Amino acid sequence: YNVRQNESNCRFRDIVVRKEEGFTHVLLSSQTTDNNALTPEIMKEVCRALGNAAADDSKLLLLSSVGTVFCSGLEPSYLIGRLSTDRRKESSRIADAVREFVLAFIHFKKPIVAAINGPALGLGASILPLCDVVWASERAWFQTPCAALHLTPSGCSSYTFPQILGVALANEMLFCGRKLTAQEACSRGLVSQVFWPTTFNQEVMLRVKEMASCNAVVLEESKCLVRSILMSVLEEVNEKECQMLKQLWCSTKGLEALFSYLQNKAYEK
Amino acid sequence: YNVRQNESNCRFRDIVVRKEEGFTHVLLSSQTTDNNALTPEIMKEVCRALGNAAADDSKLLLLSSVGTVFCSGLEPSYLIGRLSTDRRKESSRIADAVREFVLAFIHFKKPIVAAINGPALGLGASILPLCDVVWASERAWFQTPCAALHLTPSGCSSYTFPQILGVALANEMLFCGRKLTAQEACSRGLVSQVFWPTTFNQEVMLRVKEMASCNAVVLEESKCLVRSILMSVLEEVNEKECQMLKQLWCSTKGLEALFSYLQNKAYEK
Amino acid sequence: YNVRQNESNCRFRDIVVRKEEGFTHVLLSSQTTDNNALTPEIMKEVCRALGNAAADDSKLLLLSSVGTVFCSGLEPSYLIGRLSTDRRKESSRIADAVREFVLAFIHFKKPIVAAINGPALGLGASILPLCDVVWASERAWFQTPCAALHLTPSGCSSYTFPQILGVALANEMLFCGRKLTAQEACSRGLVSQVFWPTTFNQEVMLRVKEMASCNAVVLEESKCLVRSILMSVLEEVNEKECQMLKQLWCSTKGLEALFSYLQNKAYEK
Repeated sequence: YNVRQNESNCRFRDIVVRKEEGFTHVLLSSQTTDNNALTPEIMKEVCRALGNAAADDSKLLLLSSVGTVFCSGLEPSYLIGRLSTDRRKESSRIADAVREFVLAFIHFKKPIVAAINGPALGLGASILPLCDVVWASERAWFQTPCAALHLTPSGCSSYTFPQILGVALANEMLFCGRKLTAQEACSRGLVSQVFWPTTFNQEVMLRVKEMASCNAVVLEESKCLVRSILMSVLEEVNEKECQMLKQLWCSTKGLEALFSYLQNKAYEK
Repeated sequence: YNVRQNESNCRFRDIVVRKEEGFTHVLLSSQTTDNNALTPEIMKEVCRALGNAAADDSKLLLLSSVGTVFCSGLEPSYLIGRLSTDRRKESSRIADAVREFVLAFIHFKKPIVAAINGPALGLGASILPLCDVVWASERAWFQTPCAALHLTPSGCSSYTFPQILGVALANEMLFCGRKLTAQEACSRGLVSQVFWPTTFNQEVMLRVKEMASCNAVVLEESKCLVRSILMSVLEEVNEKECQMLKQLWCSTKGLEALFSYLQNKAYEK
Repeated sequence: YNVRQNESNCRFRDIVVRKEEGFTHVLLSSQTTDNNALTPEIMKEVCRALGNAAADDSKLLLLSSVGTVFCSGLEPSYLIGRLSTDRRKESSRIADAVREFVLAFIHFKKPIVAAINGPALGLGASILPLCDVVWASERAWFQTPCAALHLTPSGCSSYTFPQILGVALANEMLFCGRKLTAQEACSRGLVSQVFWPTTFNQEVMLRVKEMASCNAVVLEESKCLVRSILMSVLEEVNEKECQMLKQLWCSTKGLEALFSYLQNKAYEK
């Protein structure tokens, strides 16, 4: 069975989009990076899929992934490759792509269900509080090792993580790279339910279909009530976070830190 | 033993009000609905009791219920009966009653202790974060199946539930009707302690009496410090939520959804 | 081994300050009070140590204590002694000292790691959400028995405790003096990790040293992103809390309540 057979998918390279009864299913399935890592091009595909789902008759969006990793965040080797070429221009371009990617989640008006079947790292973890319901497989885990990678928080996690996890755990994730298991993420509120890996997809589908049987207006207005009061805060936080990333990427030190991270990773292999 | 023997109770039909040493005890005890379901008339009685307790020498208010259900939220058959008669007028009247009911909790200056001995549903669950201390019996559970009932959130739960439970669990409750056991509600912060059903009332009374031995000014000023900073947010959220409910009740679809819910319920019996 | 041998310590009496590789270690070690209780003089020493650490090349600050108690909050006998002498003047002076102490934490720009090896009471517990990472020994516990002591919340806990613990548990701590064990504090978000008492110091040092190997700019900018959005709220809350404390201390009733608390404590012995 080939997940790419659906006709609407021909327009995408690194994601799969399936139009289902009542909802749109977007799967990260990167052909150009390992572990569903994100590049500006992949983020643009996600934005485009969200734009389509916003305009069609979908009542909600299901976000998941193909493979064993949900999303490993920004691709370090891509960052280094581009930033080495033209630091000033590329740092702007990549930060802009992150800003637009995060804004697409902030502004999406229909409920987003995230189904996390494996590790969610960096930006792949930090956007989860911008989704509305988050279910995880027992195999999933969550990490945002910002400081170790010489990066500052993104995806509004500097605001949403302390809100959800408490400031102590949020900072331990950001500063010390603390890993959360699926169960920990659930008991602390990042995830609302954990399922066994073998039945994960069925459990998710069952629930998403039931949600999609609700009235579209009620779903959208309920989300509006929950989200509208914090919309402007999230926009402001996203703006600040992306400014800071751009500034770091522009600096020589930022590039060096990324380099040394990649080298350490290479040695570990 | 008749809980209605106290003289101050003659003025109420669906609640029981007992003036105790240092505090006022309000018990939901509906004679006109099943399972302590709420109607505008019952909500007005609660508002009146809160008004009295605000003015007298009570240091705090204890809210609990007679029977095995704490409160099952708005009464669907009442809603349908009235909305079928005069949709425009009744949707306004009922939404106004909800607004005033919720405002009475938002504006109450003395601490409110809620003692939940059984299921708390819909508005009966969503007002709990507007109370100050929430204790539950092991038998209690919590559910706000808004979307399934073609309703949007009320009681400021669109703001308070994400704050307390995290956005993922709050939305799972609103969108998927996720039920929380007393233990889950406690581990996620909706409830602060769970007691055994057999000793629940004693445990609550013991603690309430100790709280009522504290200085009245300290209790009221401490509550003021905790609440004042979010007062205007809650007022705004309540206003928006009630506007949205009115709009849904005014629509033909809203009525149909309620009808079909009641029919399904009838079939299940 | 004498923790006071370091040269930079000669300037402090009730705290110990150690300049380590990449970070500053401040230990509460009161010579003038029992159980590391706080007086205006001790709070000023902490402020001075934070001021020094802000200006030097430390990347972060580690806050812990000497002895078996982390900090028992404001010293009641000191309060009574001073307030009995000159209520009006002393209530202002002590409230001002609390305000400046709390502001020093709010405004500190480098990450603060708090390592809690034993009980943290009152102001000693309420400042923890103003720290960035909080680790606790299994032996630690947390209590803010404000109402029983005729005190209102301090250290911004009227805002931060409801945010982190949920309004129900926060109020149970403030109004009913509910004690949290280290494990409870961890599962509810006040603490991010609990360690065994015997290896507590090693575990903390290991992690702090790793954090101190991160880039200083990244640490400071990450903290800025996390904290800046709530800075003005915290300043406002601190101001209100200290106003209220001053008012209570100025009143005859406030003094009487503290007196009777101390007498009860004396009887218990």
